[in-house]
Amino acid sequence: MIVMVSDSRSRMVESAVILLAKHGLQATSFAEVLEHSGAPRGSIYHHFPEGKDQLIAAAISLAGERAIALLDGLDGSDAQDVVDGFLGMWRAVLRASDFGAGCSVLAVTVAADSPPLLAAAGEIFRGWRERLAELLENGGITRATAPALATLIIASSEGAVVLSRAERSFAPFDQVGEQLRVAVDAASRRG
Amino acid sequence: MIVMVSDSRSRMVESAVILLAKHGLQATSFAEVLEHSGAPRGSIYHHFPEGKDQLIAAAISLAGERAIALLDGLDGSDAQDVVDGFLGMWRAVLRASDFGAGCSVLAVTVAADSPPLLAAAGEIFRGWRERLAELLENGGITRATAPALATLIIASSEGAVVLSRAERSFAPFDQVGEQLRVAVDAASRRG
Repeated sequence: MIVMVSDSRSRMVESAVILLAKHGLQATSFAEVLEHSGAPRGSIYHHFPEGKDQLIAAAISLAGERAIALLDGLDGSDAQDVVDGFLGMWRAVLRASDFGAGCSVLAVTVAADSPPLLAAAGEIFRGWRERLAELLENGGITRATAPALATLIIASSEGAVVLSRAERSFAPFDQVGEQLRVAVDAASRRG
Repeated sequence: MIVMVSDSRSRMVESAVILLAKHGLQATSFAEVLEHSGAPRGSIYHHFPEGKDQLIAAAISLAGERAIALLDGLDGSDAQDVVDGFLGMWRAVLRASDFGAGCSVLAVTVAADSPPLLAAAGEIFRGWRERLAELLENGGITRATAPALATLIIASSEGAVVLSRAERSFAPFDQVGEQLRVAVDAASRRG
């Protein structure tokens, strides 16, 4: 029984990540999450007694951890391979969803009216920037350049996913990838 | 009377741009737009008989035209000045809203479930990319590089606005600006 309850929570959080990435914050209601996850109605009050924001916070936390895990797997690689790996994750999201999904943390940021939820999104983005900067430095970029280059990579891949969703085409995403490779190459030479 | 009616429509569209940029698509309801604009209730059916999507399409069209007008004003400038001018617009949005507003077209893209609305957003982004590419070329960037560099600038400024909103800090935005200036400088030297 405990396993079942724990399963319901996990499934709801998983569903919330997917719904946020596809349809945005307001569309990720408890009703939609229950329908998508198949979790029983009682799960809401059992697992998320504080309400919807508690579920959304858990969802973006999970999405945040997954990106960090992906980055961890790239540690020790050359800076270009780090960038390719990071862009590859986003390309897979666009491809698997037929341009229908993007970043759940971005979706929360542009529609949240709760300061704690916005702060949670900010911490996730900052965590990604800091971890990516470490990887770039380990991959040959100077300490002076790595933080700003990491922020450029995070910001431009977030934006590229949005442009590609709107245009239903990999063209913007691939142009950004090409320019990031040029920027990383130049930074590597300076390093 | 005709002027008044036309005024109501303009005020509603203006309000929709602001509400989209601050609170996202779902929060930009007819009720909120009427309250924000002070337009009379009858304006909805008079000006937007096709419903909310018609208002949203008008709002992102207006936001799209304003960005194009800003870009037009930068035509003939050096590529670095074009980038500074474009980033300056986004910085002003963040500052004026105390990190509370971003891009209305992005907000629609990540939450729209209407293919025509998404296609309208895609056309706006493509229009920005194409116009910025022309300006970069006029400002000294080669024709081979300008389109992809323009897309990098649009995508990374969109992403940087989101990161800065979430972190309530200009730090990510300014790091992206710094890296874009490095990229444009390198592209100018190659040109």
